[in-house]
Amino acid sequence: MSVTSSSRSLPLTINVDRFHDDLAALNVIGWAAERGLQRTAFSDAHSAARAWFIGRAQAAGLRTATDSAANHSAVLDAPEPRAQTLLLGSHLDSVPDGGRFDGALGVLCALEVLRTVKDAELGLPLSLEAIDFTDEEGTLVGTLGSWALSGELSPEMLATPRAGRDRLLSELHRVSLSEAGLFAARRDPGTLAGYLELHIEQGPVLERAGVEIGIVTGIRGNASFEVVFEGAARHAGTTPMEARQDALLGACAFVVDVHETIARDFPDCVANVGDIQVLPGAFNVVPSSAALKLECRSMQAAELDLLAGALIELARRHASRSGLSVEIEAVGRWDPVPTDERVRRAFADAARRLELSAIELPSGAGHDAQVLAKVIPSGMVFVPSVNGISHHRDEYTGLQDCVNGANVLLAATIALAQSL
Amino acid sequence: MSVTSSSRSLPLTINVDRFHDDLAALNVIGWAAERGLQRTAFSDAHSAARAWFIGRAQAAGLRTATDSAANHSAVLDAPEPRAQTLLLGSHLDSVPDGGRFDGALGVLCALEVLRTVKDAELGLPLSLEAIDFTDEEGTLVGTLGSWALSGELSPEMLATPRAGRDRLLSELHRVSLSEAGLFAARRDPGTLAGYLELHIEQGPVLERAGVEIGIVTGIRGNASFEVVFEGAARHAGTTPMEARQDALLGACAFVVDVHETIARDFPDCVANVGDIQVLPGAFNVVPSSAALKLECRSMQAAELDLLAGALIELARRHASRSGLSVEIEAVGRWDPVPTDERVRRAFADAARRLELSAIELPSGAGHDAQVLAKVIPSGMVFVPSVNGISHHRDEYTGLQDCVNGANVLLAATIALAQSL
Repeated sequence: MSVTSSSRSLPLTINVDRFHDDLAALNVIGWAAERGLQRTAFSDAHSAARAWFIGRAQAAGLRTATDSAANHSAVLDAPEPRAQTLLLGSHLDSVPDGGRFDGALGVLCALEVLRTVKDAELGLPLSLEAIDFTDEEGTLVGTLGSWALSGELSPEMLATPRAGRDRLLSELHRVSLSEAGLFAARRDPGTLAGYLELHIEQGPVLERAGVEIGIVTGIRGNASFEVVFEGAARHAGTTPMEARQDALLGACAFVVDVHETIARDFPDCVANVGDIQVLPGAFNVVPSSAALKLECRSMQAAELDLLAGALIELARRHASRSGLSVEIEAVGRWDPVPTDERVRRAFADAARRLELSAIELPSGAGHDAQVLAKVIPSGMVFVPSVNGISHHRDEYTGLQDCVNGANVLLAATIALAQSL
Repeated sequence: MSVTSSSRSLPLTINVDRFHDDLAALNVIGWAAERGLQRTAFSDAHSAARAWFIGRAQAAGLRTATDSAANHSAVLDAPEPRAQTLLLGSHLDSVPDGGRFDGALGVLCALEVLRTVKDAELGLPLSLEAIDFTDEEGTLVGTLGSWALSGELSPEMLATPRAGRDRLLSELHRVSLSEAGLFAARRDPGTLAGYLELHIEQGPVLERAGVEIGIVTGIRGNASFEVVFEGAARHAGTTPMEARQDALLGACAFVVDVHETIARDFPDCVANVGDIQVLPGAFNVVPSSAALKLECRSMQAAELDLLAGALIELARRHASRSGLSVEIEAVGRWDPVPTDERVRRAFADAARRLELSAIELPSGAGHDAQVLAKVIPSGMVFVPSVNGISHHRDEYTGLQDCVNGANVLLAATIALAQSL
């Protein structure tokens, strides 16, 4: 199905050649063929990508701005000076060894939406702002720019950041930012009409369903735990099987049961055991300790509590059954965030008018929209990820899927600008 | 049951006070209360223990000798100059952070047997030699002294020793040994009547059965493998459970099934998964790789082959079932070694005459007897290990159990000296 050739309702569509050229130009900034994209926050490649973005916006006659959290914006001002602003964006930074579409595609689509609206001289009642948020991927903190802009940033978040406090302070200093500046970047939610983010799915659901557009119902909450089974180290040659307290055996039975529990009792949720650390870790010693990294996710806060409780109870049951002790430590918790109903409807209407197939699905990964949704009407649209691969050099989304997504974002933006 | 007060058949018994004094004196050489015994091969504490052993032997009027593999011996020569020698022994070296009974008890019991036979002026037709073998625990090679003495040492074993080739050479040089000397330590098996080794069980079987003496049927063979399951790293929030190729989930199901397979199909065998290394090892990433350390043991070579084959097949089945690939690499293999029938009978007769309860059991751990059994009639007697603990500072065997074992070794030695 070709979007640009659709003629039934003649919706406004983006300039595919211009969009394609931008995609090609941005994709090489920080690209290392063997390892993937090297565009961590505040790296030279990241700064180059941001400068390129501002340059493209200025070339299109858009106003540009950078706030005190280093969020970079291109703005198409509304004719009415006191108009609210509809934010559209994502982020240009990547994880180490990352892919070219995660974040970057959302910023490019936002820019292209602004240019298309400007070219069409629509004179919308809202200002449109294409924004590249700072440090979404957590080189220093994670969703740092959106925390700052939304006013949800707290001193606690900066006290124990992911990269460590010292690294945060020295990096802020190096790029002429400050903690005070981060807090000063807050925007009054009353001035903001909403936030729309296009992103690659980073999962296989759309591709497997053969669907072109994903309308995100919300960002799943997650709860993570360190689960440590403790048994007794014994000589594996001399200790009969039935006389062992094998911490790894108990841990493995638990892992299998976690997956069975999800399938049976929580089919809309996901869980993962991402690591097991075994002590002492020798061929001929029955393991005395097995430490698991466990996380689970749900779209509903109450269900997340139920699920986390069920998995904790499961760990205790397996420990008791295997003569082990178990220690469970909560590591983190994020509540689920639903997207805005009107934004979802706008995306669905847009897809329908563009004759694109669409389904609703939750986002399993965190995004800037997760932060903005706490303060303003927000929503996300997903485009397919080939093989569901993300955070990897093989991350890929075909041009037509990118164009489809940009057109849905464009149509929803125009519709929402007239209704939000 | 008190051995020393048994009066039915009045068998010769050891001098408990002398034996106890020796045990107390040896136990403190290299002892660090917090960490356990620090008597790795060629350490200062190890040399001190060996010097103490030679001193005690000389004080008892025994001839002493040290061979070119640094095996230390106390000898009670037979009246007949061309008499064969019956070896009794074990090793004075320990693992790092080891226990006080593993090896040391066998050397002390051997010494006490020689002294008791000498005091009783039995004039046996065999020379008796209490021998402390070099580097049983593998600081450099493992069972190095018994490999050298038996003539089973090969250049290949010295080419890739456990501690590394450079470390082996520098340590040999430091203690004035040489590779040539190791090979020169070979003794003509025709001069040796056999080898008897007393050892702590290092497992819980005797204690759980409430039995005083274990007569070792043989040393279990073992086969070890590195088993690597490979799947695909995916975002654990965005990838549905049924769309994953979770290497850890497949590995865990395999581990559980290994234990079920042993219980169901190989009840006389043991197996252990001692470690799992997971990649990439993060909370929110579905594991792409899980590398397992697997070993299994059996008393029968044919059964060991069957068992290893069954576990390999099981790994392949779990990989296939979970959409994973699996690589299996054989790491090591030791054939099972049966003990000598006459030696087993001599231990059983001795226990019966001493009114000690006894059962037969395999040795799951490796010992110097495993090496000697390839060239001369050999056997082992076990005494209970409290809680089955070994290679740990909590390793313990009560005095009466030690005395019981020494008396069984004494009685069997006297009987075998007259029959081997």
